[in-house]
Amino acid sequence: MTDDSYDCTVATTVRLRDIDFMGHVNNAVYATFLEEARETYFRDVLGVSLVDVGTVLANLEIDYVRPIDADADVTVGVRVPELGTSSLPMEYEIRADGDRAATARTVQVLVDRETGESRPIPEEWRRRIDAAGN
Amino acid sequence: MTDDSYDCTVATTVRLRDIDFMGHVNNAVYATFLEEARETYFRDVLGVSLVDVGTVLANLEIDYVRPIDADADVTVGVRVPELGTSSLPMEYEIRADGDRAATARTVQVLVDRETGESRPIPEEWRRRIDAAGN
Amino acid sequence: MTDDSYDCTVATTVRLRDIDFMGHVNNAVYATFLEEARETYFRDVLGVSLVDVGTVLANLEIDYVRPIDADADVTVGVRVPELGTSSLPMEYEIRADGDRAATARTVQVLVDRETGESRPIPEEWRRRIDAAGN
Amino acid sequence: MTDDSYDCTVATTVRLRDIDFMGHVNNAVYATFLEEARETYFRDVLGVSLVDVGTVLANLEIDYVRPIDADADVTVGVRVPELGTSSLPMEYEIRADGDRAATARTVQVLVDRETGESRPIPEEWRRRIDAAGN
Repeated sequence: MTDDSYDCTVATTVRLRDIDFMGHVNNAVYATFLEEARETYFRDVLGVSLVDVGTVLANLEIDYVRPIDADADVTVGVRVPELGTSSLPMEYEIRADGDRAATARTVQVLVDRETGESRPIPEEWRRRIDAAGN
Repeated sequence: MTDDSYDCTVATTVRLRDIDFMGHVNNAVYATFLEEARETYFRDVLGVSLVDVGTVLANLEIDYVRPIDADADVTVGVRVPELGTSSLPMEYEIRADGDRAATARTVQVLVDRETGESRPIPEEWRRRIDAAGN
Repeated sequence: MTDDSYDCTVATTVRLRDIDFMGHVNNAVYATFLEEARETYFRDVLGVSLVDVGTVLANLEIDYVRPIDADADVTVGVRVPELGTSSLPMEYEIRADGDRAATARTVQVLVDRETGESRPIPEEWRRRIDAAGN
Repeated sequence: MTDDSYDCTVATTVRLRDIDFMGHVNNAVYATFLEEARETYFRDVLGVSLVDVGTVLANLEIDYVRPIDADADVTVGVRVPELGTSSLPMEYEIRADGDRAATARTVQVLVDRETGESRPIPEEWRRRIDAAGN
């Protein structure tokens, strides 16, 4: 998997508050980094705000490769491998100072904010996701 | 998997700060709930503090089953399915008001805090983990 | 100021995630402890949920007295010194293992959730706050 | 107080995780923004890392002026009004999209990391702080 296999790359900032008793970025903060990447992907690729769209996270998996220090420059690459009917899987690479610090996968499900029922991914989104992936 | 298949059950508190823009406990907070459960397991079963022991988290996986509300009573059941040489896998069930809200798995690796090298799980720990699992 | 000068005392839990690079509970987490105390005060004394009521925090002041360790038992005492027309001041004492770890003051303003305008504190609240303070 | 009265201005990023049940940046996160500003001030003005230097926060006060939205550009201006023997006061302005969102003050005390005793601010720091303030 090369750099340019990601559809969208997001730069984020390590906060001192992210550092835990072990002296590195806490494991839970990686999930927050992924959420920031999703937010950016939704805005830049889908043209919508993650805040306005009803999605629920169904699954999260993170492989921690190396610790991240307080002064590291962190980027998150994100891409969509393939789409389900209403599920939107994403793959991520978190890098610290250019080195892979973690890889991750999530599955989000698109839901109707009123009823909470899953709903199909709009055709417009499919087109935009395809376009971003090429 | 029944309730009593867990070796250790930890009660935790939902904070208002855990609630996100969607009105439920944020997905990253689940990772923090798991960390609290690990901390308790280390203290109660292994008789050591997670703060004092060198471990790194290698893998985290969470299946989100239902959202958790601000006023929910949350418990986390934790157990150790099997031990590697230096890796300590754990399985979890997060419950909100008694209902399953998520299941999760982590793999921790025991490391030497000076060198950062992995080191074998002590025999004493193996005995205690076995005893807790029966 | 003695213990029983507080109208409401809330027990909370230190999470490993609250501990920062200095090895103690991070300064920002104290603000979260205060928010937990406000939430409990609203529920227990006013009979409403802080989530449902429109309030904005106008001012926060914390005096840090001693650091809080990961394994400390934390309680927060809270009381309302006096009421303004639409402002609700609160005074707090955060204790760790029974010792004063911080004192704090906040001012909240009651607002209309639709318009965002400040609105007077209901008479019913005034009665309940008075009763709790005696 | 004009813009250029600050010795150091830090840009930070609002994370989706910073947003709370009210739909705005949570009050406790402001304290984290201030900590980021302190970290930058220490690095850029004092030439040291806040992580390596022993300081304890003695006092924090925040006046919340307006809510901060998820998509806001946030900057924090910071300056040192005057120095005590071992105490380092700071004044801050948090801006969201260029508008004042909060003002704040903190007092840090410089301590010996071994003994925990307060220690005088080094002459070198005094020179650098004076130079930054002019």
